[in-house]
Amino acid sequence: MKALIYKGPNAKAIEERPKPEIGAPGDAIVRMLKTTICGTDLHILKGDVASCQPGRILGHEGVGVIDSVGAAVTAFHKDDHVLISCVTACAKCEYCRRGMYSHCLTGGWILGNSIDGTQAEYVRIPHADSSLYLIPSGADEEALVMLSDILPTGFECGVLNGKITPGATVAIVGAGPIGLATLLTAQFYSPAQIIMIDLDNNRLAVAKRFGATDTINSGDGHAKEALMRLTNNRGVDRVPVSLHLEQLWDRNISITTRLVDTVSMPVLLKSLSTGKIDASQLITHHFKFAQMLEAYDTFAHAAETKSLKVIIEAD
Amino acid sequence: MKALIYKGPNAKAIEERPKPEIGAPGDAIVRMLKTTICGTDLHILKGDVASCQPGRILGHEGVGVIDSVGAAVTAFHKDDHVLISCVTACAKCEYCRRGMYSHCLTGGWILGNSIDGTQAEYVRIPHADSSLYLIPSGADEEALVMLSDILPTGFECGVLNGKITPGATVAIVGAGPIGLATLLTAQFYSPAQIIMIDLDNNRLAVAKRFGATDTINSGDGHAKEALMRLTNNRGVDRVPVSLHLEQLWDRNISITTRLVDTVSMPVLLKSLSTGKIDASQLITHHFKFAQMLEAYDTFAHAAETKSLKVIIEAD
Amino acid sequence: MKALIYKGPNAKAIEERPKPEIGAPGDAIVRMLKTTICGTDLHILKGDVASCQPGRILGHEGVGVIDSVGAAVTAFHKDDHVLISCVTACAKCEYCRRGMYSHCLTGGWILGNSIDGTQAEYVRIPHADSSLYLIPSGADEEALVMLSDILPTGFECGVLNGKITPGATVAIVGAGPIGLATLLTAQFYSPAQIIMIDLDNNRLAVAKRFGATDTINSGDGHAKEALMRLTNNRGVDRVPVSLHLEQLWDRNISITTRLVDTVSMPVLLKSLSTGKIDASQLITHHFKFAQMLEAYDTFAHAAETKSLKVIIEAD
Amino acid sequence: MKALIYKGPNAKAIEERPKPEIGAPGDAIVRMLKTTICGTDLHILKGDVASCQPGRILGHEGVGVIDSVGAAVTAFHKDDHVLISCVTACAKCEYCRRGMYSHCLTGGWILGNSIDGTQAEYVRIPHADSSLYLIPSGADEEALVMLSDILPTGFECGVLNGKITPGATVAIVGAGPIGLATLLTAQFYSPAQIIMIDLDNNRLAVAKRFGATDTINSGDGHAKEALMRLTNNRGVDRVPVSLHLEQLWDRNISITTRLVDTVSMPVLLKSLSTGKIDASQLITHHFKFAQMLEAYDTFAHAAETKSLKVIIEAD
Repeated sequence: MKALIYKGPNAKAIEERPKPEIGAPGDAIVRMLKTTICGTDLHILKGDVASCQPGRILGHEGVGVIDSVGAAVTAFHKDDHVLISCVTACAKCEYCRRGMYSHCLTGGWILGNSIDGTQAEYVRIPHADSSLYLIPSGADEEALVMLSDILPTGFECGVLNGKITPGATVAIVGAGPIGLATLLTAQFYSPAQIIMIDLDNNRLAVAKRFGATDTINSGDGHAKEALMRLTNNRGVDRVPVSLHLEQLWDRNISITTRLVDTVSMPVLLKSLSTGKIDASQLITHHFKFAQMLEAYDTFAHAAETKSLKVIIEAD
Repeated sequence: MKALIYKGPNAKAIEERPKPEIGAPGDAIVRMLKTTICGTDLHILKGDVASCQPGRILGHEGVGVIDSVGAAVTAFHKDDHVLISCVTACAKCEYCRRGMYSHCLTGGWILGNSIDGTQAEYVRIPHADSSLYLIPSGADEEALVMLSDILPTGFECGVLNGKITPGATVAIVGAGPIGLATLLTAQFYSPAQIIMIDLDNNRLAVAKRFGATDTINSGDGHAKEALMRLTNNRGVDRVPVSLHLEQLWDRNISITTRLVDTVSMPVLLKSLSTGKIDASQLITHHFKFAQMLEAYDTFAHAAETKSLKVIIEAD
Repeated sequence: MKALIYKGPNAKAIEERPKPEIGAPGDAIVRMLKTTICGTDLHILKGDVASCQPGRILGHEGVGVIDSVGAAVTAFHKDDHVLISCVTACAKCEYCRRGMYSHCLTGGWILGNSIDGTQAEYVRIPHADSSLYLIPSGADEEALVMLSDILPTGFECGVLNGKITPGATVAIVGAGPIGLATLLTAQFYSPAQIIMIDLDNNRLAVAKRFGATDTINSGDGHAKEALMRLTNNRGVDRVPVSLHLEQLWDRNISITTRLVDTVSMPVLLKSLSTGKIDASQLITHHFKFAQMLEAYDTFAHAAETKSLKVIIEAD
Repeated sequence: MKALIYKGPNAKAIEERPKPEIGAPGDAIVRMLKTTICGTDLHILKGDVASCQPGRILGHEGVGVIDSVGAAVTAFHKDDHVLISCVTACAKCEYCRRGMYSHCLTGGWILGNSIDGTQAEYVRIPHADSSLYLIPSGADEEALVMLSDILPTGFECGVLNGKITPGATVAIVGAGPIGLATLLTAQFYSPAQIIMIDLDNNRLAVAKRFGATDTINSGDGHAKEALMRLTNNRGVDRVPVSLHLEQLWDRNISITTRLVDTVSMPVLLKSLSTGKIDASQLITHHFKFAQMLEAYDTFAHAAETKSLKVIIEAD
């Protein structure tokens, strides 16, 4: 099969690889229908991610069709359409039981990282029963690609960790795909004000269309002043570029970090299916699998191409 | 001054009463601009509320203008426009500190109950600093009357106690003013499905307009079956008419009770001021103070008059 | 093998049965070392539990040794000593992911109910990876039998649902094994006062020894007055025998129901292993498996035998 | 009256000052019985606290007797014995209503900072109704001095912000008075393991006596390794000396900051009164008011004097 291979820092290629096989009773083999590229893939290509070694098939997002399953898989059958979570979860270890799938002792973010990923014709998914989600017939499968990573990341790391509440004033620094996913899902909790901060006026315009109440272009170095003006000098829960804990110690604040766990998948699936959120808005470009390298170029030059998320479909 | 007086079961009258005076350093005297009638006022008139004795001026909702304040009042001054909370809170006792203003040791729901209320030209508000809310200039004061009681009641007792979350399936039994206030504020949390149950098709039509995803007229005795159909046999968090705890003991459910505390006032004020909610939709009729008895008649016969909330304005 | 069989209302017998076999890849066969009898077993024997049909091997508690495992079991191996949870959990269905193992779509409380249980020489445990817990060498295995059901039931249904906090005043109605397990685990949260209410002075004396600050024998019909005296007329969060919701509607209370989920098992195991709780205190009598019928008699007549929990060991 | 005056960086003196007077209706004048010195007082004396200007009477802790009250004070009367909170709270502003007394718009930490403090014969307490706590007769008033600041600081900033739970593994860096107060109150939630880290073996020995399960002297630079050994390489929720957010971003951690709000005062008072905590353990030295300078010396040289908290009593 064809696959997009990480060849070491700043090198990638489409190469022929053997089709993956069931290795453990919990595995499933999925034929890919649609995948996409993540900012993390660009980091890997820069050589920033030590856990991802040259030779690896990249990609941790997408939807596909079940090709075969191992003996212990009970939730999926051949020909089921499935959404792939970027985080693989055994569901049984102590971390999975606490909802921290990203720290799963035999899973976590491994796809397109420590095992081969989704930018290929087929992918092997370990712990399939708890790492795939059945796509109901009639669903918008392209929009669902946004649920593999970007929407749960914005929702879990931004909205849930940020404890957004009705009436709150929220600032989001960065209007890229993750920031916009946070913007979309923050509205689940009806904050009074959502202020979006970015250097790119195009992305700020997109943010306005996605529901931001205010935007700030921080290019002039006066983002803080603009923020205080917009909030009657009350300020917001925000993420300064540099953290001065010696000034923050008495402010009753929380700084949280988190890798997406995709525990919010059931909530997001239900919200998408009832029209509470339109994930397809995040998709700006379409490519065929054979055009994968062009897709990477488009995504890597977002300022010029105005790309947010790109969809790569099976040929 | 003129005031609406409870004269004992099934009897009320507009009578002349002395204008109230400052009695404690924390008191304020408020000249009423707009008030309304609550279902609770109808209960009092039926003789159902033992704490409210004949001779009492009724009413616990409304907006007005500060006429005078006691020596310890620091937050309000003469001529300030204020929203009156139905719950009086000292802010200092152990219950107020836990956010349970309704159990305030020297307050709680006393207006139009154990002390004279707001259906009069003037009203005395104890603990004014923590029982009144400043109305910003330019606000829709009529819509704010809905914040005295009905919106915090729906929000606190229904939405917050009910822990409504994104993706949830919610049923609200009763589409009267409280049920509709619950419907409006439940949408702060983006539930996937809100099913409204009532006997009155007019109110169910209003509920649809207010954002209900589904409605059930329970008049045919098959509300439960309709509910299960609408939820793919999953059911919802609901309030059956009769509670069979012997059947419910193993269902992981919570039954909560609560008197409105109006602790949510700041959140609701901010949500109104930023247009997240349109409280004026709840108002169906307008009267002058001199028409108070007519207002009571209209409100008491809601099925025929299609009334939800009525506004009574100063003459 | 020998097993205790439910023979229909008021009838039980020890009979010879075939040793259970692996039926699904996730199954484990466990050789029982120690088991016990639950109040629920007595209910079954009265014919109160429709889901449990005659012919069933009873019992849902105990510790044992892994005899064999299915192909998909990865956490346990032959000869591992394991604690059996009374609740079987697949860990993958939507309820298990929300921590509601008791509502697992293919599990829940099935042992000694809809499938054969632990009062036998061997038992088959479905979903073994997420329904068994490894016993570290050196642990007090007898005390761990208390973790199969009774301690998580008291902790989850009583302490966690009851949201016990430091400084709180708590009343526990009923000083049987469940009430005492609640008493022991309530102390995890350092409430200021724990008042135990029962009709049996022996059990109230045990409660005092287990950490109750006060006890009330409710036999005189004046438990409420005693409770108010003990709390300076403030009252507590308590469970009246009959619920008068018409009197409780404005009290800011929560009534919760729940079947034990055993999600608290990791916390309880850690608490036991570090000596934060002494579960062995709950054990009052010991029997051999051949004495099972005598064990049932002793447990069923708790007032006379002063039994709390009985241990039944392999012969 | 005599008072301890901050005379600018590294300078202090006992001087004669006029007895304070009621300035606002909510004020109370308190005759001091016992006070103490806080690490913060030492910071002020180093010139580190810009808000505290030379000429200020220091001190924000202590117990005393009501000398007189303003017209709006209802909770206290002459001769009542009271505990003084280090944080002054109006109870009515938006921050106080959210339990953030430290951010009170007209209060917060002002005593011995922006207004005169408690290291004097008398002190004026603004917002007395919500900034003082009645001491029940028979209470250990000396132990209660620990509740003015140190116990709520350890409890709120350490234990509540740290979300200590049963079964948790906790590390506390620093075994000074605040760290020890955290240690004492962490035990309210029955964590499985509390590891105390300090450079001073005397303080680590005290920590062991106060309930630490393990201690680490970090003087050898290998605290991290020791911590990992003690936790089977699982680690704990801990506070590294330097925060490397670039390494922490995917760890599901929260870093919280907070000034003590003293909202936990009712819980701590109840816990003390029921013997759940022995605050007097923190007191190591006693002085008379005339010996204040000696008390400062003792407290400032804790390593040699082995002082934790010192009590300064009225002469």
